[in-house]
Amino acid sequence: VVGETWDVSDPFGGEVVELPKLGPCLVNRGVYNSKGPLANFFNALESFRAVGEPYPVNLKFMVEGEEELGSRHLPGFVEKYKDKLQADFAFFPFYAQDPNGKVIMYLGVKGILFMELVVRGGDWGGPTTRGIHGSNAVWFHSPTWVLLHALTSMITPDQKHILIDGFYDDIVPPSAEDEELLERLIETFTPETQLQENDVRRFKYDLTGVDLLRKYLYQPTLNIDGIISGHTAEGTKTLLPHEARAKIDIRLVPNMRPERMLQLVKDHLARHGYADKIEVVASDAYPPAKTRLRGNPAAEALVKTYRDLGFEPEIWPHLGGSAPFYLFTEVLNIPTAMGGLGHGGRAHSPNEYATLEGMRLCEKSIATYLVNLAAT
Amino acid sequence: VVGETWDVSDPFGGEVVELPKLGPCLVNRGVYNSKGPLANFFNALESFRAVGEPYPVNLKFMVEGEEELGSRHLPGFVEKYKDKLQADFAFFPFYAQDPNGKVIMYLGVKGILFMELVVRGGDWGGPTTRGIHGSNAVWFHSPTWVLLHALTSMITPDQKHILIDGFYDDIVPPSAEDEELLERLIETFTPETQLQENDVRRFKYDLTGVDLLRKYLYQPTLNIDGIISGHTAEGTKTLLPHEARAKIDIRLVPNMRPERMLQLVKDHLARHGYADKIEVVASDAYPPAKTRLRGNPAAEALVKTYRDLGFEPEIWPHLGGSAPFYLFTEVLNIPTAMGGLGHGGRAHSPNEYATLEGMRLCEKSIATYLVNLAAT
Repeated sequence: VVGETWDVSDPFGGEVVELPKLGPCLVNRGVYNSKGPLANFFNALESFRAVGEPYPVNLKFMVEGEEELGSRHLPGFVEKYKDKLQADFAFFPFYAQDPNGKVIMYLGVKGILFMELVVRGGDWGGPTTRGIHGSNAVWFHSPTWVLLHALTSMITPDQKHILIDGFYDDIVPPSAEDEELLERLIETFTPETQLQENDVRRFKYDLTGVDLLRKYLYQPTLNIDGIISGHTAEGTKTLLPHEARAKIDIRLVPNMRPERMLQLVKDHLARHGYADKIEVVASDAYPPAKTRLRGNPAAEALVKTYRDLGFEPEIWPHLGGSAPFYLFTEVLNIPTAMGGLGHGGRAHSPNEYATLEGMRLCEKSIATYLVNLAAT
Repeated sequence: VVGETWDVSDPFGGEVVELPKLGPCLVNRGVYNSKGPLANFFNALESFRAVGEPYPVNLKFMVEGEEELGSRHLPGFVEKYKDKLQADFAFFPFYAQDPNGKVIMYLGVKGILFMELVVRGGDWGGPTTRGIHGSNAVWFHSPTWVLLHALTSMITPDQKHILIDGFYDDIVPPSAEDEELLERLIETFTPETQLQENDVRRFKYDLTGVDLLRKYLYQPTLNIDGIISGHTAEGTKTLLPHEARAKIDIRLVPNMRPERMLQLVKDHLARHGYADKIEVVASDAYPPAKTRLRGNPAAEALVKTYRDLGFEPEIWPHLGGSAPFYLFTEVLNIPTAMGGLGHGGRAHSPNEYATLEGMRLCEKSIATYLVNLAAT
């Protein structure tokens, strides 16, 4: 592996290479997200066997290979095996250390509603079956303009305020515990690192410290993931397209529900006269999953584990990203935690990596965690 | 050729096939637009030679093979050889008959300004070098939203009014001759045919007759030919794109100038705060070309030609499409006409065609036209 460029012979084979500043690493697709932590979990169990110790707690495994496809079958599975899946704790292992070794812990994830808006010509106007000569735009409607006007009617030009009625209604203020965590977080949180890591030069908000973090964690968003219509290849071609598509996602902060947000989007489109023009195809949709720290034995035992091993975690109220953890926290209603020592990065890249030292720490932390869980 | 599907062995080879309702046709890429009419022109000249007659007029040929690429080199060529290109008349041959044999004649073309608007993250915000994880939309700007807001600021949601200051300033009302032509045109013009041929179910305007034609011919337009940003393939992927692009064209009606319209677009973007966010890349740009009927010997001789051969033309003030005919009408300032008998269709399709009977008529009309031009 040279810099950013993959030169390990087989990205699915895996090779140990020395990475700058990181030391020996296993470089392999999925090693960080999330085959490495899973393998480390099993290795930790092997170590109990090796020394002839029984496991500290009884274990049930739920291993899913479909998360990157949106975990479409997981909710049905959990519903079907609800009784069998009952447990005292739920734990999702991942490498929680950043490149400098700092341990970051998240008490939950955001939810998401992903949908596609599709506009095609129809009874309302516009070409219905194929793109036609662009000169016709003078007397026929364009599905593309319909999509663009519908989208921009949902957000202010400065991108700070979403104009869908009721969009912010379900937001709840941070809990007392969250406020405490936020106050502690600003001691270690550096906004500049966020800008640098993402190659972005300024934030959307002129805010700092806790105010910026409150936006990041408690502000729902409306994002265009992709948009396409008409002729997009090189060169000139005048065309009145018959179809325009946008993929958008709404990130859901604690207490927001995807079904309700979908309805609000549909209501907005109807109120603005788009009901007969825009098809809304919702796909991935799940609510956020918020856990507490205190009174959540799975999380408390994890913090204890980090400290036992000499690491003081930086604790975030929740993650900016989304995952269907509500299945554990809400559907199964099990005290849940996620983490473990270890460091990896470049998720989904050909040069995805995990440090060997992190893997060793991961196995140690999981063994310790199981012991700590048994003691709660 | 079966229905819409090409099954002639080689679209560049050319084959004579029987097409439903049309009879024997040459099916071949470019046969209608515009290798067929060109070949017919040369054949007509051959016929003079065959019977030992001198050409009725002296001839200069300008043959260009770059029109589909925007005729980028033509203006420079015309400027350079302005003296050599001087002539009494200019003529552009094409098959002017519709599928029913009706002859349609256009006294000019619209102009066009084609440009691409490009938004990338920069000092104003947004990801600068690559799409980043969609969850970051909560605190970083999106270039996609910037592009969409900029575009929708230019036109009303009903797509009937363009909101760029000065956009309509240069429009001139139809001339007295044009008004006469419009009054005659509504006797044969059928809006339903326009809808049917384009698979469109309704016009943008609730207008009929001359009012509809006036919109079609004298209303400039702002059309999105294509737009793209972010993840547009199948499936879910949350992404905050670092770039968004739209190709747009403005059709110019008589008296409008592309340079001025480009400036108005730039002024609009600057006034709305987009000067540092949006790059405007203008490519094809040329003014409309308007000719008269009366007092234009090239056009009068063409009408006489049609009538000599038994056809009464339907005369349009100009075409809805664009071509750089201003080089003849304005730069060279030569009386110009375009047309000729014959019928073809499906321009640019694999099953582009021209009828054999039309080709015969085309050659006859061109021979007659040259004789008529000599007599003016």
